[in-house]
Amino acid sequence: MRKNLGAKPLVYPQPVLIIASYDENGTPDAMNAAWGGICGPAHISMALGERHKTVKNILARGAFTISMGDVEHLAACDYVGIVSANDVPDKLDRAGFHTTKSGFVDAPVIEELPMALECKLISYDEASSCLVGEIVNVCADEKVLNSEGKIDLSRLRPITFDPMNAAYHIVGEKVGNAFQDGAALK
Amino acid sequence: MRKNLGAKPLVYPQPVLIIASYDENGTPDAMNAAWGGICGPAHISMALGERHKTVKNILARGAFTISMGDVEHLAACDYVGIVSANDVPDKLDRAGFHTTKSGFVDAPVIEELPMALECKLISYDEASSCLVGEIVNVCADEKVLNSEGKIDLSRLRPITFDPMNAAYHIVGEKVGNAFQDGAALK
Repeated sequence: MRKNLGAKPLVYPQPVLIIASYDENGTPDAMNAAWGGICGPAHISMALGERHKTVKNILARGAFTISMGDVEHLAACDYVGIVSANDVPDKLDRAGFHTTKSGFVDAPVIEELPMALECKLISYDEASSCLVGEIVNVCADEKVLNSEGKIDLSRLRPITFDPMNAAYHIVGEKVGNAFQDGAALK
Repeated sequence: MRKNLGAKPLVYPQPVLIIASYDENGTPDAMNAAWGGICGPAHISMALGERHKTVKNILARGAFTISMGDVEHLAACDYVGIVSANDVPDKLDRAGFHTTKSGFVDAPVIEELPMALECKLISYDEASSCLVGEIVNVCADEKVLNSEGKIDLSRLRPITFDPMNAAYHIVGEKVGNAFQDGAALK
């Protein structure tokens, strides 16, 4: 029997997006967001309230990066989601994160997190809090790439956020082949 | 050392969204989409090209549902992503999926998939292929709920799509507590 859970923003799995930006002084900041996803061939959308320092930074600089939260840095990824740079200006230092400037956009890349999207701001709608960016490059540490130069999930070890239970889960083992396993039903 | 992978729509993890709709005759259809995510407090956005029968259906009916792809129905979820209802009108039957009409919106709920978002169409932008819906209800089979009535990922067993390697992975074990594990860094 099905139960109705109400109008909730639930998708499984949801990513753990660590959004990094520069403020007006060039100080890097980062926050943790689970409300987001691909919305076009090289586009990503996220729901980000305008009170976030990250939103002010992105509107001023026109750019940001998004790193994937991973098991190795789970506590740091959680930390940047529970503390605001409005209150703790050196939150990235406290998280143990170091940054270098992206070679593609005016935004910092977090060195410790092995995969990042480098994005230009396309639009921000205050009414809906929807921010859309164009992904101009994806960079990844070679330690998370396989012999074909593709990202290997068993090396990246990304985490996913379960909002109902306030939990993080790891992405697990491979269970199927896309565009193949369904062909048997043709 | 970091490598540049180019402008690619990569987020880890990405969901496996099974979007169900009625056509003009009331025949249910479904497709598989990985490009999507939460974009507001009760909103979801997806990139869906207008050639999809699903898009025609949603624009005509103003509604759709999104079920989470799961391990148990992996082949059927893959199948609805590789065959178009433009070519195979009875694709849902072939997938082994049965539907009942949502009690909230004019769209079918796939009975076999244990969790679904019931959505009203908010907007569709042809230029960007971005479709936005409002989630008016989430329904879930009680077999995937824990004793608190919350979705239990070990029962739902959702899958995630790895676009670089054309693979599906299961969501794995819990590895942390959100809003807690980062507090140690305060």
